[in-house]
Amino acid sequence: MQRHRVVVIGAGFGGLFAIKALKNAPVDITLINGTAYHLFQPLLYQVATGILSQGEIAPPIREVLKRQDNVDVRLGWASKIDVDKKVVSVEGPGIDYEVGYDTLIVAAGAAQSYFGNDSFADHAPGMKNIDDALELRARIFGAFEIADLQTEQEDIDRWLTFVVVGAGPTGTEMAGQIAELAHRNLPGQYKHIDPRKARIILVDALPAVLNTFGDHLSTRALRQLHLLGVEVELNTKVVGVDATGIEVETERGHERIPSMTKVWAAGVSAPPLARKLAEVTGAKTDRAGRIFVQPDLTVPGHPEIFVVGDLINLDDEHGQQLPGVAQVAIQGGRYAAKAIKARLAGKPAGKPFKYFDKGSLATISRFSAVASIGKLRLDGFLAWLIWVAVHLFYLVGFKNRVSAVMHWAISFLGRGRSERVATVQQAFARRAIHEYGDPFERAREEIAEEHVSGR
Amino acid sequence: MQRHRVVVIGAGFGGLFAIKALKNAPVDITLINGTAYHLFQPLLYQVATGILSQGEIAPPIREVLKRQDNVDVRLGWASKIDVDKKVVSVEGPGIDYEVGYDTLIVAAGAAQSYFGNDSFADHAPGMKNIDDALELRARIFGAFEIADLQTEQEDIDRWLTFVVVGAGPTGTEMAGQIAELAHRNLPGQYKHIDPRKARIILVDALPAVLNTFGDHLSTRALRQLHLLGVEVELNTKVVGVDATGIEVETERGHERIPSMTKVWAAGVSAPPLARKLAEVTGAKTDRAGRIFVQPDLTVPGHPEIFVVGDLINLDDEHGQQLPGVAQVAIQGGRYAAKAIKARLAGKPAGKPFKYFDKGSLATISRFSAVASIGKLRLDGFLAWLIWVAVHLFYLVGFKNRVSAVMHWAISFLGRGRSERVATVQQAFARRAIHEYGDPFERAREEIAEEHVSGR
Repeated sequence: MQRHRVVVIGAGFGGLFAIKALKNAPVDITLINGTAYHLFQPLLYQVATGILSQGEIAPPIREVLKRQDNVDVRLGWASKIDVDKKVVSVEGPGIDYEVGYDTLIVAAGAAQSYFGNDSFADHAPGMKNIDDALELRARIFGAFEIADLQTEQEDIDRWLTFVVVGAGPTGTEMAGQIAELAHRNLPGQYKHIDPRKARIILVDALPAVLNTFGDHLSTRALRQLHLLGVEVELNTKVVGVDATGIEVETERGHERIPSMTKVWAAGVSAPPLARKLAEVTGAKTDRAGRIFVQPDLTVPGHPEIFVVGDLINLDDEHGQQLPGVAQVAIQGGRYAAKAIKARLAGKPAGKPFKYFDKGSLATISRFSAVASIGKLRLDGFLAWLIWVAVHLFYLVGFKNRVSAVMHWAISFLGRGRSERVATVQQAFARRAIHEYGDPFERAREEIAEEHVSGR
Repeated sequence: MQRHRVVVIGAGFGGLFAIKALKNAPVDITLINGTAYHLFQPLLYQVATGILSQGEIAPPIREVLKRQDNVDVRLGWASKIDVDKKVVSVEGPGIDYEVGYDTLIVAAGAAQSYFGNDSFADHAPGMKNIDDALELRARIFGAFEIADLQTEQEDIDRWLTFVVVGAGPTGTEMAGQIAELAHRNLPGQYKHIDPRKARIILVDALPAVLNTFGDHLSTRALRQLHLLGVEVELNTKVVGVDATGIEVETERGHERIPSMTKVWAAGVSAPPLARKLAEVTGAKTDRAGRIFVQPDLTVPGHPEIFVVGDLINLDDEHGQQLPGVAQVAIQGGRYAAKAIKARLAGKPAGKPFKYFDKGSLATISRFSAVASIGKLRLDGFLAWLIWVAVHLFYLVGFKNRVSAVMHWAISFLGRGRSERVATVQQAFARRAIHEYGDPFERAREEIAEEHVSGR
């Protein structure tokens, strides 16, 4: 007899924790993911700033799940969901295929949003995947190299100005790390420039950094950023991004900041799959494309389709919209798994999904972080120790933990950055794509054709 | 008073060891290199097969030299040498510049050669730089992923066939590591294929593997390869490489091997700079573009220009041409530095360059290598221990040594591969370049223009 088929779209926190929770369940799971690895997104900024290697935050899915027999990992992008036939269409690398389901868990995550200004993406990479992080690594370290070659002061300044857009945890941590690079790691390594003269500017349209952490920690974080030498521009809206600078509207009026290196950590939007799912199910989506789910995380009218993680729009018991953080995804994935097991066992439906907020953490510089845990507000070294412990706990795999601790020691106790390498390709890829179209997409199509005809 | 100016082109073994040997000399050194890192080429195959991260074999030049005050590191590609004015023209990232010298050390290394069949490069990446290694990583791990999605046996076989061209140390080590992946690391991780059924084929036109190691070790290496399950095709000439296979001429006649993943580890050629240097100095070059240097490693008629490393063609005292290995470059670099110091001190010219052959090493699989040291011939575990010790000794930087040992333990004692991540870009970049031109080159030009006009 065929067992109950669960298809999971996405190997982020939501998908992975759902699968792990189904380890001993009488189900056959198919996991569909665009890459062969799980990505620990909260540490992407450390890959971008040369602290960690990409392997340390992106363990192969097959290694993570190798002791779980009931899951089939398949590479590809889910392009269509037929909710009547219960079939997912997948565009794989060089081969398209379909996968049938009895229960579907959609955990496809969120993409970067430029709020309708997609041309910004060419000049200010986002912080969502390994390609982003390695390209930013190439741009950040490359900026110091290129600044060292300039003869005009104006050019030196432009190459040594770094603008980070978005003062949430990702942007704040990124700005802090670029400042550490400029002030601690790189001084003394250049003959013609002083890296300490670099300007690191953190921009946000809101009136506070780490807005969701509350006033107290916002203020503390702001002070830590100032101590690091980061310029913080609040109430400042980005209205233009181009190759050589950024245009902002501040309380002082319209300004241009000349800068060759921009980072976008400002907004998220749901991937196209969310809209497709909403179309075929009649579910409603919010402005960012997130799906309004039922209290049990299913799509209205489709109890067999769960949506978890960054893709959902759901309010908690206080009427607050759940944030797009790892814990919401992890708890959502586990909730869906539990609901599936209960149904298969013939048990009644459980309680609605309730998010347990374990707290928020952000590290501004080495040995210093801010933490909000329940009613506790911490900052400084103790918060930093909690940050280290929590991140090690959720980093997948023993090997990656050992490796990350070693690299943190090198970067935070010493002054080294072990992982500064960027390929020639990465340094120029996005700009090239902007000008000449995406050659990779066409190459993928070509490979698909070869596959069919080219024997 | 201006000090004696030494310009070094290339931060490989030759350039780096020349600079280190000039640490306390009364000279001002300018190092010109196309990337910001020194590359430990002998371990590239371990980056390609997921054992090491790129950072571990490519330390930033500025970190390596941070305690040496008399060197200025400049990013760029030397495009022209004016031997009369003693000026090197450099194409930097977005900026061109010139550097004057009193003494020049050309240590620009060798590029991959496809023996005139440059179209092979699109389908069989070489093994010369980080871009190559990461692209091969994407192709090798990608091949298993894609094979797992196939429904036709013919397609599965084609994706699970790996051809390595060239049975020197690089090709032999690469074939051995792909075999270890297929037989030790990956089994059990796929639902639809058995990675142990992968075919790994090592092809060479010569009648022996590791030809330069002598008959005894060749035979031992061949046996180890067979034990690992590698098919070795000797006396076999590659006459065609395309997207879906490789054409060879063997003693049996013309054959086609269907294979999606090909690696080229067969030949080297000097970069264009060598030919340009030969043109302006009248030096002679061999078929691979290497420069016939004087016994003191200078260019005929130009005692102020040294050439070291893979770029030279010079016979040892037995009339044997010096091989393109790290030791020839290291000893050449040190020799040039010593000669410069002697001249500046007004001492007479020393003896001609004499290469001291410290031996050859290649590791076929974990715990097993072959070593030729003086008259000693070793194979098996003892040779492998020597291999580990020697590679750790020459790997630059304490941090990278600790890190490499840890990753070797993970891969050789355990069954993990810590560094399997490849970007989407890398997986498709070369193929895209083949079809659509090099978008990166155009992007680089565009950046250069922006630099001039785009303020």
